[in-house]
Amino acid sequence: MITLDYANCTAERVGDHGLAADLFSPGSEAWTAAEAITADLARTRGTGWERWRDLALGDTRRAHVSAIVSLVEERRGRFDNLLVLGIGGSALGNLALQSALNPPTYNLLPDDARPGPRVFILDNVDPLLVGATLDYLEQHAGGLERTLVNVISKSGETAETAAQFLILRDRLIRALGKDRHAENVVAITDPEKGTMRSICDDAGYAALPVPDGVGGRFSVLSPVGLFSAAMCGIDIDALLDGAAEMDERCAQPELTSNPAATLATMLVRLGRDKGKPNHILMPYSNAMDLFADWYRQLWAESLGKRETTSGREVHAGYTPIKALGATDQHSQIQLYREGPNDKVIGFIEIERDARDVEIPTGAGVENLRYLEGASLGALLRAEKRATEYALVESGRPNFTIRMPTLDARRVGQFIQLWMVATAYAGRLLDVDAYDQPAVETGKKATFGLMGRAGFESFRRQVDAALAETRFVV
Amino acid sequence: MITLDYANCTAERVGDHGLAADLFSPGSEAWTAAEAITADLARTRGTGWERWRDLALGDTRRAHVSAIVSLVEERRGRFDNLLVLGIGGSALGNLALQSALNPPTYNLLPDDARPGPRVFILDNVDPLLVGATLDYLEQHAGGLERTLVNVISKSGETAETAAQFLILRDRLIRALGKDRHAENVVAITDPEKGTMRSICDDAGYAALPVPDGVGGRFSVLSPVGLFSAAMCGIDIDALLDGAAEMDERCAQPELTSNPAATLATMLVRLGRDKGKPNHILMPYSNAMDLFADWYRQLWAESLGKRETTSGREVHAGYTPIKALGATDQHSQIQLYREGPNDKVIGFIEIERDARDVEIPTGAGVENLRYLEGASLGALLRAEKRATEYALVESGRPNFTIRMPTLDARRVGQFIQLWMVATAYAGRLLDVDAYDQPAVETGKKATFGLMGRAGFESFRRQVDAALAETRFVV
Repeated sequence: MITLDYANCTAERVGDHGLAADLFSPGSEAWTAAEAITADLARTRGTGWERWRDLALGDTRRAHVSAIVSLVEERRGRFDNLLVLGIGGSALGNLALQSALNPPTYNLLPDDARPGPRVFILDNVDPLLVGATLDYLEQHAGGLERTLVNVISKSGETAETAAQFLILRDRLIRALGKDRHAENVVAITDPEKGTMRSICDDAGYAALPVPDGVGGRFSVLSPVGLFSAAMCGIDIDALLDGAAEMDERCAQPELTSNPAATLATMLVRLGRDKGKPNHILMPYSNAMDLFADWYRQLWAESLGKRETTSGREVHAGYTPIKALGATDQHSQIQLYREGPNDKVIGFIEIERDARDVEIPTGAGVENLRYLEGASLGALLRAEKRATEYALVESGRPNFTIRMPTLDARRVGQFIQLWMVATAYAGRLLDVDAYDQPAVETGKKATFGLMGRAGFESFRRQVDAALAETRFVV
Repeated sequence: MITLDYANCTAERVGDHGLAADLFSPGSEAWTAAEAITADLARTRGTGWERWRDLALGDTRRAHVSAIVSLVEERRGRFDNLLVLGIGGSALGNLALQSALNPPTYNLLPDDARPGPRVFILDNVDPLLVGATLDYLEQHAGGLERTLVNVISKSGETAETAAQFLILRDRLIRALGKDRHAENVVAITDPEKGTMRSICDDAGYAALPVPDGVGGRFSVLSPVGLFSAAMCGIDIDALLDGAAEMDERCAQPELTSNPAATLATMLVRLGRDKGKPNHILMPYSNAMDLFADWYRQLWAESLGKRETTSGREVHAGYTPIKALGATDQHSQIQLYREGPNDKVIGFIEIERDARDVEIPTGAGVENLRYLEGASLGALLRAEKRATEYALVESGRPNFTIRMPTLDARRVGQFIQLWMVATAYAGRLLDVDAYDQPAVETGKKATFGLMGRAGFESFRRQVDAALAETRFVV
């Protein structure tokens, strides 16, 4: 089971910049607050926007896995490429799972050395990105007839995904004909309503559900994240087993037996009481690097909220930042140790690598002799421990999420840990962790600028607000 | 020429969170300060640690380019793969140049569709990363005999690079024999002294210099960044031309004619006077995404310094954060608009894409009709403008670095802009922008933990400081 080590967030280790140890003792205010939230979360789980909590359990899980597995069995082997179209919560989980559980060279490997098709997750409308990907698929990778397009959008109206999909659908139809092209599309969308639902019904696309009550950033353990994972050989049952195991631990009423409650309490207290609003996640693992991006969305979008309930305006939330160990020791640690003490640094440590690389002996270079016979994994863990020490020495709070090894089960545990911690943090900050009201303005302004009927006034507002000035050099 | 648009950082646009317009008027305190720094920088350029400033000019440039070009001519065509070993400043520039100026599918393309070898830049000792890369090269990419190893380390003692190099050298010797393997190595290192220099002299490796007075994070326009770029078909003369053009603009005495002085003044003033210590760089361009990582090192490591000169301890510096448009609109913008107003958001906008992708007409989906006939480039720019508007509307300062198009010349301009701006910011904050004293502790602790002779006391200190506690869940 993965664990959370928060010793370096205590005052004992980092002085005034840390938390008093009795915060984590029975009867403390934090303990009582966590107990109350645990009870509240037990009451609301599986309802409203907390239906993500049960994705790894019971009937919901069985229904999703069985639908995914049968679709994967039907389509796998028929395609050389899987092209995922989605953005935000419809892409970050997919990217993170592939990166964590398949090798970084996955797409370069020959067919017989890969457990599934090459995978491309297009999470932007950048024309150079999309153009180069299309060129590759059409000219060098068997053509679009050998490409399965997996479009992910609950409504079908997310501008970026819709634009990509219009392009891909047109090209599929031109390559395969109107009738045949449907075999090359799997949609993940609302099971009942919306623009994408209608498109699927009209065209006869296979579809999997974005379940009700599961927001984008909480959807990785639904078909949104699981279909592309299963297509590429990732063990989705192990992922869900891990999530279920962690969920059970995160239902414990005692603060210090509950890793999600502890993680949230620690980060919120450091943020609120100790002037640490910047929350860094720094995996010592390239494979987990994209999970830091996934975390960025979860933490930023769930907690970054303007609240006026208490009469005055409060800008809640913390700024999630990604870093990568050991790489960023050579880029960010100077700042983390000597710059403003406004950060909490979270490490991810892999205790045992599925594969390690030995450093050979006999090079005969005196100054490098200490490396000979060691392994890269041992060096990486030493660097992490050294960095932990260096931060403690500068009074900078930090913590470690320790994974016994990197596999689907532990990744499932990691996912559920952060999702439940986010639910706790939302309650602790008294914000709605499940909405994102501030993104509407930009969406409407985009519609206005793109000439969508009914949004003309937004274009005028934008043009007036951003008129040219002399402040250009 | 690329430009800096800072209108949205003024009080006119974002109220109290912005800067007074008269800050940018002749005679203002900021104007006078910038003038003095410009004069000082003219005095120190080309000396001490400011020798990076002349990398794009005169004899230095000619010597580097000619050495690089002749080595590239000699080795190109003989290798299918280029494996760069380096970390921090010895990797970030290489990664950023490849990503900016070669397509994201570069390594996937067949040999005749690529201007150079496949390129792998190993900037970590993660065993899964290194192991998978070695497996691919040895088993699927022609073997190490078809791989050129480009090791980059000024001293040769950076633990991560040294460990990688010991592994690669051993494998090259086993694959090719002791005599022949030297043809497969190009080192970039100190021209006169150090561990790597001795290794090169002993083994007869071809070598290019890490020039004196050029620190890692200021080295991208030296052989450190240019050799791998030239091997992969990037026009290094255009890069240097761009840098020289920008450098000239950044020598202008008037604040508002000098983009580096303006950028530094704006960010330091917003950081110091307006409570905005978090400095985000958010390219609306996947290709420029890794330049945000390059910027992260430059800004963090140069400015994040503890200073005690004025009697009391000051923790200077700003936290650079990377984001990606439009992708992170679906991840970070909720926080940027409604969370703590402690950020400045810098956009990169590409005005004209070298290649665009049209959204076809005729799909017949009413709600998506506004997208038909537009291009992805136009959509991306509309999203950026909409986001700019949404941030202004919430009183969040932001600015735009506008690139007429994405090519080597403009990338050279971009690089020089940020390097000179960093020199200004260091002077404004009264810190040494060229050292990194705080990374030493971690290096020594790593040596101790790895058993290097002479560092035993560090292991004892680490073990004492990080003894196991009950704070684990």
